[in-house]
Amino acid sequence: MATATQEIRGTAADVAQEERADTGMDTGTLLGALGGIFLITVAIIRGGDAGIFLNINSALIVVGGSMATAFIAFPSKIVTGLIPIVKNAFKPGVYEPADYVDDIMRLASKYRSGGMKQLENEESLLDNRFLRNGIAMIVDGYNAKEIHELMERELNAMLDRHNTGVKVLRFLAMQAPVFGMAGTLIGLVQMLMHLDDPSTIGPALATALITTFYGLMLANLIMTPLATKLGSRTDMEGILCKSIRVGIIGIHDRVNPQKIQRGMNALLAPAQQRE
Amino acid sequence: MATATQEIRGTAADVAQEERADTGMDTGTLLGALGGIFLITVAIIRGGDAGIFLNINSALIVVGGSMATAFIAFPSKIVTGLIPIVKNAFKPGVYEPADYVDDIMRLASKYRSGGMKQLENEESLLDNRFLRNGIAMIVDGYNAKEIHELMERELNAMLDRHNTGVKVLRFLAMQAPVFGMAGTLIGLVQMLMHLDDPSTIGPALATALITTFYGLMLANLIMTPLATKLGSRTDMEGILCKSIRVGIIGIHDRVNPQKIQRGMNALLAPAQQRE
Amino acid sequence: MATATQEIRGTAADVAQEERADTGMDTGTLLGALGGIFLITVAIIRGGDAGIFLNINSALIVVGGSMATAFIAFPSKIVTGLIPIVKNAFKPGVYEPADYVDDIMRLASKYRSGGMKQLENEESLLDNRFLRNGIAMIVDGYNAKEIHELMERELNAMLDRHNTGVKVLRFLAMQAPVFGMAGTLIGLVQMLMHLDDPSTIGPALATALITTFYGLMLANLIMTPLATKLGSRTDMEGILCKSIRVGIIGIHDRVNPQKIQRGMNALLAPAQQRE
Amino acid sequence: MATATQEIRGTAADVAQEERADTGMDTGTLLGALGGIFLITVAIIRGGDAGIFLNINSALIVVGGSMATAFIAFPSKIVTGLIPIVKNAFKPGVYEPADYVDDIMRLASKYRSGGMKQLENEESLLDNRFLRNGIAMIVDGYNAKEIHELMERELNAMLDRHNTGVKVLRFLAMQAPVFGMAGTLIGLVQMLMHLDDPSTIGPALATALITTFYGLMLANLIMTPLATKLGSRTDMEGILCKSIRVGIIGIHDRVNPQKIQRGMNALLAPAQQRE
Amino acid sequence: MATATQEIRGTAADVAQEERADTGMDTGTLLGALGGIFLITVAIIRGGDAGIFLNINSALIVVGGSMATAFIAFPSKIVTGLIPIVKNAFKPGVYEPADYVDDIMRLASKYRSGGMKQLENEESLLDNRFLRNGIAMIVDGYNAKEIHELMERELNAMLDRHNTGVKVLRFLAMQAPVFGMAGTLIGLVQMLMHLDDPSTIGPALATALITTFYGLMLANLIMTPLATKLGSRTDMEGILCKSIRVGIIGIHDRVNPQKIQRGMNALLAPAQQRE
Repeated sequence: MATATQEIRGTAADVAQEERADTGMDTGTLLGALGGIFLITVAIIRGGDAGIFLNINSALIVVGGSMATAFIAFPSKIVTGLIPIVKNAFKPGVYEPADYVDDIMRLASKYRSGGMKQLENEESLLDNRFLRNGIAMIVDGYNAKEIHELMERELNAMLDRHNTGVKVLRFLAMQAPVFGMAGTLIGLVQMLMHLDDPSTIGPALATALITTFYGLMLANLIMTPLATKLGSRTDMEGILCKSIRVGIIGIHDRVNPQKIQRGMNALLAPAQQRE
Repeated sequence: MATATQEIRGTAADVAQEERADTGMDTGTLLGALGGIFLITVAIIRGGDAGIFLNINSALIVVGGSMATAFIAFPSKIVTGLIPIVKNAFKPGVYEPADYVDDIMRLASKYRSGGMKQLENEESLLDNRFLRNGIAMIVDGYNAKEIHELMERELNAMLDRHNTGVKVLRFLAMQAPVFGMAGTLIGLVQMLMHLDDPSTIGPALATALITTFYGLMLANLIMTPLATKLGSRTDMEGILCKSIRVGIIGIHDRVNPQKIQRGMNALLAPAQQRE
Repeated sequence: MATATQEIRGTAADVAQEERADTGMDTGTLLGALGGIFLITVAIIRGGDAGIFLNINSALIVVGGSMATAFIAFPSKIVTGLIPIVKNAFKPGVYEPADYVDDIMRLASKYRSGGMKQLENEESLLDNRFLRNGIAMIVDGYNAKEIHELMERELNAMLDRHNTGVKVLRFLAMQAPVFGMAGTLIGLVQMLMHLDDPSTIGPALATALITTFYGLMLANLIMTPLATKLGSRTDMEGILCKSIRVGIIGIHDRVNPQKIQRGMNALLAPAQQRE
Repeated sequence: MATATQEIRGTAADVAQEERADTGMDTGTLLGALGGIFLITVAIIRGGDAGIFLNINSALIVVGGSMATAFIAFPSKIVTGLIPIVKNAFKPGVYEPADYVDDIMRLASKYRSGGMKQLENEESLLDNRFLRNGIAMIVDGYNAKEIHELMERELNAMLDRHNTGVKVLRFLAMQAPVFGMAGTLIGLVQMLMHLDDPSTIGPALATALITTFYGLMLANLIMTPLATKLGSRTDMEGILCKSIRVGIIGIHDRVNPQKIQRGMNALLAPAQQRE
Repeated sequence: MATATQEIRGTAADVAQEERADTGMDTGTLLGALGGIFLITVAIIRGGDAGIFLNINSALIVVGGSMATAFIAFPSKIVTGLIPIVKNAFKPGVYEPADYVDDIMRLASKYRSGGMKQLENEESLLDNRFLRNGIAMIVDGYNAKEIHELMERELNAMLDRHNTGVKVLRFLAMQAPVFGMAGTLIGLVQMLMHLDDPSTIGPALATALITTFYGLMLANLIMTPLATKLGSRTDMEGILCKSIRVGIIGIHDRVNPQKIQRGMNALLAPAQQRE
């Protein structure tokens, strides 16, 4: 039973397998995105001439140009790998550090009473790769210093990888307004060549400005908030893993489970702690 | 008696419970905010046409757009948690590090004379969670290195949490001017489609610029100063906690109270020190 | 005699008492400020219409708005504390690290020959708080590690405090141009409402732009240079204090005065060294 | 046989010889660059007047001006050395860290069974300079601490050198838009001197804006993405070298090859690991 | 003989005496500067009205204003000290780290064979202050830890001093465009007061824009490239000094000269190494 519920949670939060629970949506993220788009749309429709705000040419320059430079700047599979990452941002985060505190206290008790055998049996039942790797190192007879170092390396390497997605989003957020400006410049130049017909100046200028508008919206309504969200999720994963590492070292050193709990709690927010 | 006054102060400055004294206002913050709004209002009224500066459409785009992206970027409860944080910024900060120096010197003396028992009795009377946790670890028999490490972790975790509010405010301060610009672009595009009636150009352009004005004011009159204030409050909390940690280690090591005082004073400004 | 000259210098450079010699002015700072204002004034007068560049409304928005937000962002006494700090920036810096090298070599010799007694007598004659605290710790029997740690803490705490002034100036330098822009926007909006009388457009636009001009000048002619000056003074104070700390540890360890001199010199510029 | 395939790979990824396999192209980079140029070209052609977008004067100011300042800022051979570096960016990266894990496990086994002699024979067969230097130090009898320090220094020095290319590209990306603006200012000034013939205003302004357009495109379509790509390649080289260093220290300490593998894997992404 | 050639090189690269060989010019820097100015001049002349681009008023505001604020921000002798520093930037850099590797290997051999006496004789022949100081410390009987610490301090203090020049140039590069903008604002305001004579609008606006052009050119054609060049020279000096320090410690510890060479080479680029 404990194993079954643990499995679901483990899969959900498993930072290594990089999958998240497929059910439900992060209401805040979703409402934020919809709310922002709704507000802008209302502002456009209330002012009339909404049609001019839909412009394929502008979208091509801004979205296409930014994406093209992203393919220059990053390996293709990292850029295409953004799609699942962005989808994940709309799903609720399922980090329950308190559950890991329980798991680790249980493992610590078993190890202190039943020894290595008990730990070996438990290892295969753990779903979080970081936790399982740590237990495996205890079972394989690594000493505390080796475990700490290896988990440190693993943790840093994981955080670096997860930050790549954030980097791509920040790159796009930087490029989009520039391509917006470039599109406006193109339209401006073309308009300036035909100043002789004054009736076309207004609409031509309006069309030229749409590209700047697209660039700003792509960057600040979509890319920057997503990058911020993913960045803080990675930070939370880092804290969770550091907390797990504190627990693993505690298990290895056969520390009193209460002390392990206190050590893990010290890294967590009061609301996440298990008292 | 000492306990009663201590309780008030403890509650006020308690960095863990994240509450502050509900009485009084930080006059500087309040006068700053009122003064800034007053100056801008006078400048607007003296120039006439003050009515045009009140524009619900512009406010919706700037405030709504920025908040919507904040809900994408941060968990909902962190964004809604901004309201008490901002309220707190208008209340006076009640850090009296000198009082903690006294508390710790008293505890050090008691521990040196009366031993663990005395400390245990005092523990429950302490209101500052950071200080109480430290004393609890001495009572529970942790060694100096463990106490230092655990308090370090707790301190960093707390500072990280408190900085989240600052991050959200900085995020809003970055987004507001961009949504201001976006709103101006929308108005500009709509105006450019109707250049045939020259009499509407001026007012339409004026209305479009209001959104940029709102964006600048929201960011620089409100968000940036609040973020700066909260950031420096968090820094002060960090210094207070470091000073308490120096004291806790001193109590544990049964160091001479005069030496503890000197060690704590070294972290404090001359005006905050207890000689 | 030595004490008298030392007293003047000590008071002047005393980083703790935060006072500086009241005589004389830093000619570079003064000429820089006057030169900059003179150049801008000449450029304004040569072009005519100098009167329009004096605008109380603009000054209120830029200076008032920036200061108002500074009062929101920082405790009142830090903002008002800027006045003596800025005055100090126009006084010459009186750091003569070489003199401290002499003092410390003298103290080292006395301690090696006469012992603690000699040092105790000297302590009260020292004017630099950082140096005096260090000697006091030797007299009170602290060991080298404790002295190093306490002086490290004291040094960092002092640098943090001194940097607060720099932070406020940088904050003002960031806010001033934004309030300049905001004032220009207000003027622009008001002008756009009255496009029907073309003769007023020019002067109205000119007046609106003055606020932007004020914002740029306040930030770049005054705030940024002062922040840079104060920042580099704090850096120099830090180097002086680090050099003093090297000397104090040397005195404590009864190191050969020549070695102490070399150790202190290593931190100083060739021109500041005492050979 | 093993040596032959190894030679190709070794040459390809050899971070010291700074050559990469001459066959094939990095499809992502190539398609990104072509796609971006294609999109911009389509946008220009669809709007008509495409001819005005080809302007030698503008290209001279933007490309020439940026390159000129690059020759002031960096040694000539570093600027001219950009050409092969940029060419490399269009070739696929050939890092197969897993192969190095195999190599090192093989060397570890040989050293544990056959001793120093075996290692000496292998040394000359290794193509990666970093790996070969490490083995050479084991053969020359350096201890683990010396090897770690020397490889650390070598690694940092290499990363610094490789980052110079990135620095030049970032410098160009910063200069290009400024020279674009400067060119537009020149054109604007010249146009403003001839306002008397209204028919020339439009085309003159259009031509002036082309320089700004060139500056933005040079910076954001070419320089910034290339700098980002080279920067992340250097990061990957750093990770590979750190992983090799872990292996070298393991070989020296005659650590169990399975442990070495785990230690190297901890630094690599799951997809790059050899299980 | 060896001493004679060494003297020239020593004087040239002597980082302490801060002099460089007075013969020859750094062709890259010179051609870059001339090329940039040439390109801009051609662009100006081809467009006609070249005369308007020479404007003493604009130059006074931009150059004078920036320099005035530099005198506020930095001590006078640091600002005037820029002139020799900038001159140096146009002279070729004469760092030949490989020669120092030879010197140090020679000294190491002499010390191992002939002892302290030999080293004492060599000391006075060395021209590089950093190297000479290191040898002097060996002769004076300092231990390895003391030497490392003292050289570390000396190195950091030297790098800080050398970076002051870079800081001033970066400060000027930041101020120049702002004073350019301020000058344009002054011209704009003056023009707007006289809109009644349309024939003067164009030239007045053109003149106003020249100041912005001057600001951009001063910052991006001159100050930023020079700051970048000086910054990378300081970095190279730092690497040279670190490499010398590795050698000094090696001499002190009577390490095998081959090992010293390897240790020094590890810090140098392959092209600079002495095999």
